[in-house]
Amino acid sequence: MPVLVMKFGGTSVATLDRIRRAAKRVGTEVAKGYDVIVIVSAMAGKTNELVGWVNETSPFYDAREYDAVVSSGENVTAGLMALTLQEMEVPARSWQGWQVPLMTTSAHGAARIEDIPPANITQKFAEGMRVAVIAGFQGVSPEGRITTLGRGGSDTSAVAFAAAFGAERCDIYTDVDGVYTTDPRVCAKARKLDRIAFEEMLELASLGAKVLQTRSVELAMRYNVKLRVLSSFEEQSDEAGTLVCGEDLIMESNVVSGVAFSREEAKVTIVTVADTPGIAASIFGTLSDAGVNVDMIVQNVSETGYGSHDELVTDMTFSCPNEQLARAEKALEGARADGTLAFERLETETEVAKVSVVGIGMRSQSGVAARMFRTLAAEGINIKVIATSEIKISVLVDRKYMELAVQALHDAFELERA
Amino acid sequence: MPVLVMKFGGTSVATLDRIRRAAKRVGTEVAKGYDVIVIVSAMAGKTNELVGWVNETSPFYDAREYDAVVSSGENVTAGLMALTLQEMEVPARSWQGWQVPLMTTSAHGAARIEDIPPANITQKFAEGMRVAVIAGFQGVSPEGRITTLGRGGSDTSAVAFAAAFGAERCDIYTDVDGVYTTDPRVCAKARKLDRIAFEEMLELASLGAKVLQTRSVELAMRYNVKLRVLSSFEEQSDEAGTLVCGEDLIMESNVVSGVAFSREEAKVTIVTVADTPGIAASIFGTLSDAGVNVDMIVQNVSETGYGSHDELVTDMTFSCPNEQLARAEKALEGARADGTLAFERLETETEVAKVSVVGIGMRSQSGVAARMFRTLAAEGINIKVIATSEIKISVLVDRKYMELAVQALHDAFELERA
Repeated sequence: MPVLVMKFGGTSVATLDRIRRAAKRVGTEVAKGYDVIVIVSAMAGKTNELVGWVNETSPFYDAREYDAVVSSGENVTAGLMALTLQEMEVPARSWQGWQVPLMTTSAHGAARIEDIPPANITQKFAEGMRVAVIAGFQGVSPEGRITTLGRGGSDTSAVAFAAAFGAERCDIYTDVDGVYTTDPRVCAKARKLDRIAFEEMLELASLGAKVLQTRSVELAMRYNVKLRVLSSFEEQSDEAGTLVCGEDLIMESNVVSGVAFSREEAKVTIVTVADTPGIAASIFGTLSDAGVNVDMIVQNVSETGYGSHDELVTDMTFSCPNEQLARAEKALEGARADGTLAFERLETETEVAKVSVVGIGMRSQSGVAARMFRTLAAEGINIKVIATSEIKISVLVDRKYMELAVQALHDAFELERA
Repeated sequence: MPVLVMKFGGTSVATLDRIRRAAKRVGTEVAKGYDVIVIVSAMAGKTNELVGWVNETSPFYDAREYDAVVSSGENVTAGLMALTLQEMEVPARSWQGWQVPLMTTSAHGAARIEDIPPANITQKFAEGMRVAVIAGFQGVSPEGRITTLGRGGSDTSAVAFAAAFGAERCDIYTDVDGVYTTDPRVCAKARKLDRIAFEEMLELASLGAKVLQTRSVELAMRYNVKLRVLSSFEEQSDEAGTLVCGEDLIMESNVVSGVAFSREEAKVTIVTVADTPGIAASIFGTLSDAGVNVDMIVQNVSETGYGSHDELVTDMTFSCPNEQLARAEKALEGARADGTLAFERLETETEVAKVSVVGIGMRSQSGVAARMFRTLAAEGINIKVIATSEIKISVLVDRKYMELAVQALHDAFELERA
C-alpha cells in the first residue's frame, strides 16, 4: 500500500482532545488506503519546560543528558496517539527513536540523521498494522545514547521517514493553514500560497518564516519529498494548505513569491581595518569560533586611512541576530586585545530589521532589485546594507520602517494576486 | 570500590531543589569511597498524571503503549540527577532501562526482571565514573519494547541492581523516616524500628504499610540484600532509618514487631453452598478469573441445609479489598446464573477492617493469639474472621473499632518499648 507521512506539531497534540482530532485525520487517510507513518511532537510547552529544567540545573550542561531529558515529551504523545488510534480500531503502535532505530550522529542536541532502516516497520505494515506512530525529534547515536535533532526537529524526522519509506507525501500539520506571501499580522493583504518551491521555502524559513525547520526543507529538497503544510484546526481537504515541492510541479509563478522579514537583527561596523589579504577570514573566523551567526556582509574599501594611517584601509559591516551582538563585540574586542585583529573602533546598531523578497522567478526576470529599491525610496526608507542571492534580495533598514517596507513591497510585486 | 545503591522516590525528586538535596547525599557517599548506583522515580504526581491520560484515552488500553507512556517521567529525573551531580563535579551519567539493559518479561505493566548484565556500567565505573543514575520502574522486553514493573516498581529496580552488583546496601530514600511498629497517625505510641526482618516487612507491606513495594522486599530476601528505609528530608547518619535485613542480623526482638491494619476491606458470605468436593476451587477459581484478590477465607460446614435441601451444606466467608466487592458479587451471581455454582444468597459487609499482629518471634513463642483475642475481648471488640500464618495473626473487625484495636494491641504487646 502507498505510504503517507503525517506530522503533528505541539499545538496539534497539546491535549487529549486534540490528539483525538489528529487521530481522526489519520483514520481518514487509512480509510483511503494509505499505510501511515505519524510523527508527533511533545505537547505544546512541554519541551520548553524540560529545556528550562536542564538550563536551571546546569548552565553548561552535558548535551547527552540534555537529550535524555528533553526527548521524553515525544514518548508520551507517541504512546497516547497509538492508544487513541487503537480506540478507533485502527491497528497502530508506537516507536521511540531507538526502537526504529533512527540512527544519528553523536552531535547531541543537533544530531544529523544517518539512517532509518525500514525493515522493522515495513514488516508490521505487512502484518496488518496500518499506522506507525513515531516519537519525533529523537534518535540514537552509535554509542547507544539518545540524541535529539535540534528544536523543530520533528519536521526533519517526518521528512526523513518520508524519504526512507518512499512516501507519496509528507503532511505537516501545524497551527497555521499554510505558507503565506508574508506574515498576515504585518500585511493584511498577505495571501496563502498553494505551492512554493523548496528553494523559496528555504529562503523564507531561514529568514524567519518559522513554519518549518530549515533542515527539514533541505532534506525534502535533496530527496524530492513532497511536503504539505496545513492546519490541524481546519476542515481537511486534498487542496488544503501549501505544497512545498520541486520547481517542476509549479506551473507558473510570480517573479516574487513572498516577502520575508526579521526583526531581531543587529548591525556591526568594524571601522578602519587594515585591508590586508586574509583579513575577512580572520574577522569571520573569530566570530564563527565565538558562535556568532553572521548573515549579511558588506566591505567598503577606502584609499586613505583615518588619522596617521595611510595604507589601504576598509570598513567591514555585517549583521547578526540581536541576541548574539554582545558575544560578537566581546570576540572582536578580544581579538584586538590579543593582537589578532587591528581596527579603530566598533559601531553597532540594534534598531534594525531585515526585509527580503524571495522568488525563483528572479532567475529569469531582471529588474527585481531595481523595483525593490525604487519602492523603498518612494516611501523614504533608507537602505543600510544590501545582500543578494540567486532567488533573494535582502536589505537592512531601520526597524521602525519594517512594516511599511513589507507592505509597500507586497503591493509593488502584486503578491495579493495569485 | 564497594557499590552502594541509593533509591530516591517521587517526593525526594519532586523539584530541582530536592534533586539537588538528593544529589548532595549521593556526593557524601561517593566521598566515602563508594561507587554509587542511583535509582530515581518520576517527580511526585507525574506518573499519576500519565496514568490518568492513558486511562482517559483508552479504558482498556494496550499495556505496551501504557508502558511507553508512563515510563517517561523517570527519564526526566534520571537525566536531571546526572546533570546535578556533574555540576557538583561528581562524574555521573544516566541510563534508561533499555540502555542498561534491564531485561524483563513481556508482562507489560507488571513485568518481572529477568537479568541485569552489569558489564556496561561496571566498565564505566572502571573508567572513573562514580555514579550511574538509572531511570527506575522501567525495563525492556525480549521484543525490544519498554516495560514497567508495576506501581512502586522503582523499589524493585533498586533491589535488583543491588543484587546484580553485589552492593553493600540498598538505601531507599522516601518521605518517611523508617518503618514503625504501627501507623503513628492511628497510635501515638508508635515507635520507629531500627531493624526488621524481611518476612516481617513482607507481612507489614502487604497488609497496607506502604513503605516499600512488596516485590522489592521479596527480591531483597531472596538475594539477601540489606535494605535501609530512610527519609530524604532529615539529616543523614549511618544509623538513620530502618534496616530491613535477614533474621541473622537481628539480635533479639519482641515477639510481635508491629501491628498492621487495612481499612479498605469487605466481607462476603456465600450462604448455603452444597459442600461437594471441589466447591472451594470452583468458588475461588471464579473469583480469581474475575481478578478479585481474596484474602481471608473461612468455611463453616453445617450438617443440615436450609429450605428443602438436606445434603451437607456450608457457608463460605471471605474478605477482599472493598473496591473489588462489586466485581466479586457480579462474578458469583454470574456463576449461579449459568449453573456453575449453587448457593442460597450472598451476604456482604463493607464496614469492616483487618488488624494484624506480626513478628518472627511468634515462631518460638506461644500464646500470642490468646493474648490478642483476650485484648480485643477486653475492649468489647467482636472478631468476625480469623486468619493466621507462621508469623502473623489477622482478624476482621467492625471498622469503627479499628483504631481502638490497634492501640490496645500496641499496648498489650508493649511495642512502645524497644
